[in-house]
Amino acid sequence: MNETIKLQLNHRSIRKFKQQKIAPEIINTLVDVAQHTSTSSFTQAYSILSITDETIKQQIATIGNQEYIATAGHLFVFLADQHRNAKIAQEAGQEISVLSSFDRFFVAATDALLAAQNVLLAAESLGLGGVFLGSILNDAHALIDILKLPEYVVPVLGLAIGYPDQQPQLKPRLPQKFMHFENTYPQDPASLTEQLAAYDETVQEYYDLRDANRRIDKFTTQITKGMQRKHPGRMKLLAAYQKQKFIGY
Amino acid sequence: MNETIKLQLNHRSIRKFKQQKIAPEIINTLVDVAQHTSTSSFTQAYSILSITDETIKQQIATIGNQEYIATAGHLFVFLADQHRNAKIAQEAGQEISVLSSFDRFFVAATDALLAAQNVLLAAESLGLGGVFLGSILNDAHALIDILKLPEYVVPVLGLAIGYPDQQPQLKPRLPQKFMHFENTYPQDPASLTEQLAAYDETVQEYYDLRDANRRIDKFTTQITKGMQRKHPGRMKLLAAYQKQKFIGY
Repeated sequence: MNETIKLQLNHRSIRKFKQQKIAPEIINTLVDVAQHTSTSSFTQAYSILSITDETIKQQIATIGNQEYIATAGHLFVFLADQHRNAKIAQEAGQEISVLSSFDRFFVAATDALLAAQNVLLAAESLGLGGVFLGSILNDAHALIDILKLPEYVVPVLGLAIGYPDQQPQLKPRLPQKFMHFENTYPQDPASLTEQLAAYDETVQEYYDLRDANRRIDKFTTQITKGMQRKHPGRMKLLAAYQKQKFIGY
Repeated sequence: MNETIKLQLNHRSIRKFKQQKIAPEIINTLVDVAQHTSTSSFTQAYSILSITDETIKQQIATIGNQEYIATAGHLFVFLADQHRNAKIAQEAGQEISVLSSFDRFFVAATDALLAAQNVLLAAESLGLGGVFLGSILNDAHALIDILKLPEYVVPVLGLAIGYPDQQPQLKPRLPQKFMHFENTYPQDPASLTEQLAAYDETVQEYYDLRDANRRIDKFTTQITKGMQRKHPGRMKLLAAYQKQKFIGY
């Protein structure tokens, strides 16, 4: 046990922030941390946007359907970015068709996501809180236009950070035996729902600050309901990435 | 500055390990850290395999074409996993066709990758070192068979950790101005290669422990050469994920 692990085990997503901007030196440090994260084959195939323009912030909050996006102390968008590398290669006369493979998209997305986690933890280590925003992908087509992303660049994850103005409970996770296995993926139990009964109860005891007046659904109920949602914008995510010339094959 | 950020800024990939196993309590802590990472809509759509079987380790080392994979103190494979959630929903009579959308693959991959970064940093905080293994995807079809992954489960990243037996230099990263932008993606400079000349020199001064006898290529040269590589197995990654029923649309 040490400071880093203590911090990691205490992670809560923060969605309500004090009206206090984050000092530019802190933002620089967070980007520095991002840069020191592992990167696939040293390609550094990601970039970071800091969204400071109030109009763009509001547009992103609308896409994500979450008003707190616009009120965070700082808003990052992590980009899978092969554009810089495409340009370097093209300036050397190299053709770049490999970039349309799923593989080259995925290494770029991996770079961006590993960096994003490091940035959130660094922010938390400085007394900030934050929340990842998958919801920025609710309308990736629009977001790509708003952020003026060129070919081979796509948004993969948003991150809102700021000085916390709430103290959520720690959200109970699945028992390890359901998600950590040895060597090979195990056979399914006869009834997973039965095996998860105790965990389902634990989850129901967690009160979500977003709606503190009622108990939340069991875990298995949340998962089942989630399968019914086909967000129209999210169902166009592949098309949006393909428009940027990624995932052609 | 604090312990966590110091650790993050000092990250080096470690590829040579002492012959010392990692205590099971440490592995449990690392998995606990993974579990406390953010997860999209609380779906916990990832799993972790610990590879302890020597035959499987060797098979993965062969796929990754990196012998140090087999000699690490511990080998993790991070999985994007919607299988558990599929089963929960199906037991409740819910159809699950949404899982074949790119979106549901991508949130699962995001969960797995954020957790992976947290695990590596936690390991580093305990005096361990490690290296991410994108190379396990060189033959995803074979790996899926070896690990007996069911539908809606795919490997996304490997992680080898252990007690370090090398001290690599810190690898110089791109200056921030090339990868951190405000609000929108900037216009390209006339010549990116010219602008990167100083960085190219810095990179050449870095000596890679994997081949300490020669200077490494300039950054721009490495990137250009990388575009020439179309690893046959990696070009089949999308097909392998689609075989698992992911990324159908």
